[in-house]
Amino acid sequence: MKAARFHGRGDIRVDEILEPVLRPGTVAVEVEWCGICGTDLHEYLEGPIFAPTPEAPHALTGESIPITLGHEFAGVVAEVGAGVDRLAVGDRVAVEPYIVCGRCDACSQGRYNVCASLGFVGLSGGGGGFSQFVVAEPRWIHPLGDLGTDVGALIEPLAVAYHAVRLSGARPEHSAVVFGAGPIGLVTTAALKAAGVGQVVVVEPAEARKGKAPVAGADIVLDPRETDVLGAVADLTNGRGADVTFECAGIDAVLETAIRATRAGGTCVNVAIWGHQARVTMNDLVFREVSLVGSLAYAHDHPATIEMVAGGLVDPFQFITGRIQLDDIVDKGFRELVDNKEENVKILVRP
Amino acid sequence: MKAARFHGRGDIRVDEILEPVLRPGTVAVEVEWCGICGTDLHEYLEGPIFAPTPEAPHALTGESIPITLGHEFAGVVAEVGAGVDRLAVGDRVAVEPYIVCGRCDACSQGRYNVCASLGFVGLSGGGGGFSQFVVAEPRWIHPLGDLGTDVGALIEPLAVAYHAVRLSGARPEHSAVVFGAGPIGLVTTAALKAAGVGQVVVVEPAEARKGKAPVAGADIVLDPRETDVLGAVADLTNGRGADVTFECAGIDAVLETAIRATRAGGTCVNVAIWGHQARVTMNDLVFREVSLVGSLAYAHDHPATIEMVAGGLVDPFQFITGRIQLDDIVDKGFRELVDNKEENVKILVRP
Repeated sequence: MKAARFHGRGDIRVDEILEPVLRPGTVAVEVEWCGICGTDLHEYLEGPIFAPTPEAPHALTGESIPITLGHEFAGVVAEVGAGVDRLAVGDRVAVEPYIVCGRCDACSQGRYNVCASLGFVGLSGGGGGFSQFVVAEPRWIHPLGDLGTDVGALIEPLAVAYHAVRLSGARPEHSAVVFGAGPIGLVTTAALKAAGVGQVVVVEPAEARKGKAPVAGADIVLDPRETDVLGAVADLTNGRGADVTFECAGIDAVLETAIRATRAGGTCVNVAIWGHQARVTMNDLVFREVSLVGSLAYAHDHPATIEMVAGGLVDPFQFITGRIQLDDIVDKGFRELVDNKEENVKILVRP
Repeated sequence: MKAARFHGRGDIRVDEILEPVLRPGTVAVEVEWCGICGTDLHEYLEGPIFAPTPEAPHALTGESIPITLGHEFAGVVAEVGAGVDRLAVGDRVAVEPYIVCGRCDACSQGRYNVCASLGFVGLSGGGGGFSQFVVAEPRWIHPLGDLGTDVGALIEPLAVAYHAVRLSGARPEHSAVVFGAGPIGLVTTAALKAAGVGQVVVVEPAEARKGKAPVAGADIVLDPRETDVLGAVADLTNGRGADVTFECAGIDAVLETAIRATRAGGTCVNVAIWGHQARVTMNDLVFREVSLVGSLAYAHDHPATIEMVAGGLVDPFQFITGRIQLDDIVDKGFRELVDNKEENVKILVRP
């Protein structure tokens, strides 16, 4: 079968590889759509970051580059291994793309998203969504019901947002500020509105992204180049600051503003992955007793995320800015995202 | 009356000042003992930090230096203003030394310790414990019952610890690591043991402080100059890391180790006040979903802290390393703390 594989920085090729083998207790999913994630783009431009190298193969898969990319995918059950009864051929499903040890402390706590040996299908070996078939255990395969597989490919990023909102403890009576309206900021905004949060403010300087934020549900969009963000958030919250804030940028000055925009006793959730150490004014956490919480991916969030979309609380189509074929993945996928980063949210690839 | 007043960096004088005036609804406390806090020492050596200057008088007191120091104090009720019925002349009491607005968002939440205009008696005007009398409202005055006023002077630092432990969510089945065995690290250790926490590890390089940690309740003391702290904490916690950790040092490398020593999903409480921006590896929070929580002073913690000491859960006398007269406060107090920082915990001053 064809697979888009990461061979190294700037080097993604559509290769012919063997189909994965169905084992007892596993399910083969024929991928219909797979989104290109910011993480994939980082690998392409600056990697290998998460992708394992021959010097350090992944602890659980034993694989190293070249590895198949793609972890935001959905498809149709193509074949069911012996002993699997919860799924049937033809079911539309989203795949939670984890490779975890199941034995470490985090796994024992049910926090498998922070497994000590964490890997992702599509980043760490074990196949990937930019290929025709993926084989996975049923625990990672979530029925989409009536939802299409294009929407299904968006369940993964929406689960990231659902998880971050869950960790924040956001409630309907709360106010929220989302810093950054890239793909993760936008889905976080949508998940906050889906959770019923009354006031969601989005802070974003890029014109194209500013336009997308209200569609995602932002009640107010602030441009930090034009507006004193802390002053505006204070005005919008009767001087209190926001109950919950979300750092979706991974930039020191943004983190500082996010912490300062958080209400005394409130929670700032860091959703960004950082490429450098941050400078943090710790006294900003101390003198207002703010909690700074790291959020990574999702755990046990897929069923509720599917329900959120199926229930009409989020319109997933707003996030689809392109649909391409696998053969075009570099030029119309990765290069397009590099050249028109701010115009795009999700480009879906059909393997 | 005599009062030790902070006039500026390196300049503390015992001055003759007027006694504070008893107003209706207030209580005059004759101070019997007042501890010298690290904060006082910082003012002396590097201040004015918290102490208001003539250019920026305190928002609530309107006062600026010279101001009377001393916020860790206890004494005896000397006079009761009209309308006060909960307290009687002769009661031994500890004073919660706050000056708060009562109107800001934090105060409205009951988090008066992070009041937007926060001040402390003994740092911001409104008198201080290094003088014979302090006048305060009854809400800030906590009966000591059978406890002596020397022990009463320790309620304030112990309340800092009680509060930090409360914010951490520590439970008896938890493991804890306290970074730093200065006064705040020691009282935090004692408060953790008083809360029933099974395993409390203290990390401290200074010899004199290492000796004090087991007395405070440390089950294990690690010297970071001799031991791989992360490896040792992993060994002590079956590879998990500690459920709760406490940064009581305000040092970048210590904060980094504290975060990394925290269990996936656990909480790192920052108790230190920082003199500089910290470098934080945000991905350490993200990839193990650790919460970093700022803790400041105390709010509604004094009664439980007094009960903790009265119930014998903490031996307060271990923390008293000196008792001096007010006239000796500079030479036998502040200078002694500068010269023999690690040997001392609390020096109590008798005004």
